[in-house]
Amino acid sequence: MLGGDRRTLARAARQQADWQGAPGRPTRARSPSPPEDFLLMADSKPLCSRDGDPMAAEALLRDVFGIIVDEVIRKGTSASEKVCEWKEPEELKQLLDLELRNQGEASEQILARCRAVVRYSVKTCHPRFFNQLFSGWDPHALAGRIVTESLNTSQYTYEIAPVFVLMEEEVLKKLRALVGWSSGDGVFCPGGSISNMYAVNLARYQRYPDCKQRGLRALPPLALFTSKECHYSIKKGAAFLGLGTDSVRVVKTDERGKMIPEDLERQIGVAEAEGAVPFLVSATSGTTVLGAFDPLEAIADVCQRHGLWLHVDAAWGGSVLLSQTHRHLLDGIQRADSVAWNPHKLLTAGLQCSALLLRDTSNLLRRCHESQASYLFQQDKFYDVALDTGDKVVQCGRRVDCLKLWLMWKAQGGQGLERRVDQAFALAWYLVEELKKREGFELVMEPEFVNVCFWFVPPSLRGRQKCPDYSERLAKVAPVLKERMVKAGSMMIGYQPHGTRGNFFRMVVANPALTRADMDFLLNELERLGQDL
Amino acid sequence: MLGGDRRTLARAARQQADWQGAPGRPTRARSPSPPEDFLLMADSKPLCSRDGDPMAAEALLRDVFGIIVDEVIRKGTSASEKVCEWKEPEELKQLLDLELRNQGEASEQILARCRAVVRYSVKTCHPRFFNQLFSGWDPHALAGRIVTESLNTSQYTYEIAPVFVLMEEEVLKKLRALVGWSSGDGVFCPGGSISNMYAVNLARYQRYPDCKQRGLRALPPLALFTSKECHYSIKKGAAFLGLGTDSVRVVKTDERGKMIPEDLERQIGVAEAEGAVPFLVSATSGTTVLGAFDPLEAIADVCQRHGLWLHVDAAWGGSVLLSQTHRHLLDGIQRADSVAWNPHKLLTAGLQCSALLLRDTSNLLRRCHESQASYLFQQDKFYDVALDTGDKVVQCGRRVDCLKLWLMWKAQGGQGLERRVDQAFALAWYLVEELKKREGFELVMEPEFVNVCFWFVPPSLRGRQKCPDYSERLAKVAPVLKERMVKAGSMMIGYQPHGTRGNFFRMVVANPALTRADMDFLLNELERLGQDL
Repeated sequence: MLGGDRRTLARAARQQADWQGAPGRPTRARSPSPPEDFLLMADSKPLCSRDGDPMAAEALLRDVFGIIVDEVIRKGTSASEKVCEWKEPEELKQLLDLELRNQGEASEQILARCRAVVRYSVKTCHPRFFNQLFSGWDPHALAGRIVTESLNTSQYTYEIAPVFVLMEEEVLKKLRALVGWSSGDGVFCPGGSISNMYAVNLARYQRYPDCKQRGLRALPPLALFTSKECHYSIKKGAAFLGLGTDSVRVVKTDERGKMIPEDLERQIGVAEAEGAVPFLVSATSGTTVLGAFDPLEAIADVCQRHGLWLHVDAAWGGSVLLSQTHRHLLDGIQRADSVAWNPHKLLTAGLQCSALLLRDTSNLLRRCHESQASYLFQQDKFYDVALDTGDKVVQCGRRVDCLKLWLMWKAQGGQGLERRVDQAFALAWYLVEELKKREGFELVMEPEFVNVCFWFVPPSLRGRQKCPDYSERLAKVAPVLKERMVKAGSMMIGYQPHGTRGNFFRMVVANPALTRADMDFLLNELERLGQDL
Repeated sequence: MLGGDRRTLARAARQQADWQGAPGRPTRARSPSPPEDFLLMADSKPLCSRDGDPMAAEALLRDVFGIIVDEVIRKGTSASEKVCEWKEPEELKQLLDLELRNQGEASEQILARCRAVVRYSVKTCHPRFFNQLFSGWDPHALAGRIVTESLNTSQYTYEIAPVFVLMEEEVLKKLRALVGWSSGDGVFCPGGSISNMYAVNLARYQRYPDCKQRGLRALPPLALFTSKECHYSIKKGAAFLGLGTDSVRVVKTDERGKMIPEDLERQIGVAEAEGAVPFLVSATSGTTVLGAFDPLEAIADVCQRHGLWLHVDAAWGGSVLLSQTHRHLLDGIQRADSVAWNPHKLLTAGLQCSALLLRDTSNLLRRCHESQASYLFQQDKFYDVALDTGDKVVQCGRRVDCLKLWLMWKAQGGQGLERRVDQAFALAWYLVEELKKREGFELVMEPEFVNVCFWFVPPSLRGRQKCPDYSERLAKVAPVLKERMVKAGSMMIGYQPHGTRGNFFRMVVANPALTRADMDFLLNELERLGQDL
């Protein structure tokens, strides 16, 4: 099928000059009625045969599936293989031959391209990939993602996504139950940043429904509050939503990175004194760097006193709600108005799986976003059009993000997912204990989550804490070690400066396949990479 | 591996009450230091074995892959199978057993669940799925999507997405070249609605950079212009961005649904007279219902005279740029400042593949959106940090959307994709010619694209155009036929009212596997379904 298609194309190509990428070239005159040769073309064989021999397409997919099993699932998760294959950008461009040409390529070339893509890509499922808040993999979640891709539908109407409309609602209901709500609303968004934006937009709409039609100029100046340790998407969102980054009032945090409720109260007073109208507080459950949990009960008290919408950005820490042992870190979350929670992080559901959960039962989400496009949300459908959830969102087409989480949950059960969360905590604690036993490692602070922040102090700096250039020199260590580990392909771990602190490593324990041996490896490898510094 | 994991979990479960969904229940006291049993737990076998026997995970994925080949690719594309298996929501809920429980399930159950998900999902790759602007499938694009899912990375840094950072840039460069730009910028967005929002945000930032920090209240009232036939995302976007829907000035269209440049000019004058500052015109190349192309040259002239940002929403029509024969429909697009183009529609790249293209070479995209999060975009990295494109966008994690298009393009070549576009036009024209030959079909208008809009006039209404209730009765036909076709599973085609016109069908020819026989089927099937009306 594909071979034949390509041969036909090759013949056509010989009769036709390469025209692409030359848009200045004059095009044929308009044809008000269809020319005869196009009717002929329509009569020809379909471009992708369907009732004919599907073997070429299937063979291609089978071969690609084989590459995935061999290269991603086997090698990509093997500690004896590299986590990445570093290439300089110019070299990588050559290796990949990225240019898109007029002529198509044969199956063997396409398969070689798939192998190259996999080879030079970072293996985020590898047991030494500690670089982001997501890592590892789950076979059921991956199965769900592959089914999702093959079904290729959009989440907007029951008509074309009956299974997924019902499934999304069930998954959201489960997540809401874990938050502590027996009713409410929600939607899966393309990432936590957009979930956070939704919360801000909903809060301002709830207070000033006029905003939707008349815009922010019709409103008094607004103020929202979040801590200095919040995710950067809060400020990005404020800019995008037209509020401006100045509308974000930054609340102080304590030494562990938790929002100080008293400073929140103070800042609300300051904003009001300046003539701004406070409308939302965004608390964080699991900050990006330190993994800190804001004190939700105390913050909810403040919100209640001042009548403010409480949003909890639990993109990272939300999954802790699954753990009976650790969910106290989010005590008070049930008092929130909205919660952002990304199961693609700690639960390895796969990018992207980001839920925005709402306590609201007044259809706020739909009222805020609906525009009632008549071509999609016809009101004279033969089923209950309340099932057409597309008008709850600012997207039109929206990917199906529920199946991967649903299928994984069905396979692992809540128990299995809880065990993963508990295991991640336990391994983080193990790492902390081991790190303390070794010379040359210094904790930034005792973690309360699975972010373990620490400095590696190389031999030349040990015992020199009193030297005036100590901090400056220590800050240069992490980038050097990072370069070495990436070029060796042995490990990937993130680092960053933070406040007045120079660069330190942020280890994230998320991959459910990790063991103590991986924690030991991390420490050994840093010692090995940094022994000459 | 999975079996053993589950057995362990089952044992653990017997010792533990079901606690999930009972968030009000008190949780254990805080543990300031790790309890001994957690260190023990961390020592146990990893939850997902990796160096051990990966056979269970592989077997699951192989079985799921088999389901996809059999049920989606073979049956799902076969004209002799149903396009959908309609179930009432309550019945479908029962069939799917959606509830998420504490206990996990065995592989056989999970596979049965995958089969059920596929069975009750609509087959958008089916040759009788005409319901949306996307349909059909491409094996290479699907291969790219499956590779993307297995690699599970985020597009934000070169560090963790080296292949995809370079690939995205190359794909965007190619799309820009087809627009007519030898330089520029761009990004893949989660859908055309968000691409359109980006354009509006960039246009206001370019004119008023203060907006990012100080918000819309620091700006004069703004006005943007789009036609009455534009996509509903323009108004949704204006609300979300804080401009308010009132800021969208609706320009009249001609009888074919194209924006009237003279009315645009007039509306700009009206807005200015009312004290608003015009800043953007959003023209549409390929409107949603009629498939109309706005006259870009004339609109560009207006924008040039008034110094307005010209955005072209070519989410649907952009792929016509690949056709030497038909790209004249977008003449003038090279004069735009930004273009939204969704290759997931006519090119069957798969949801979602939505490019925002910019003519700008001043790094506007980054300046508008950057927030320089130090934990992700460290400036002391060992490679050129300009490759970290994550700060160009309002998302943080961002899915890889380039590989599916790149791989398909490599396989088909520009020629193959051009042929698909031309074929779609040819089939649409064939349908129009056939439709005219039959009694009982009435064109809404001659199409200029692959949207063919028409009424089916059932026997009882033929020759009764003069009756006072004709239009009212005709408008009720499409919903009835839609219900019948969906319940039969024979076909899916969209309908909608439009302006003063009652419900009519919008046939979309996009699936590259379609043939004349499918067009004939469409007409025959409508006649069959509507013969008693």
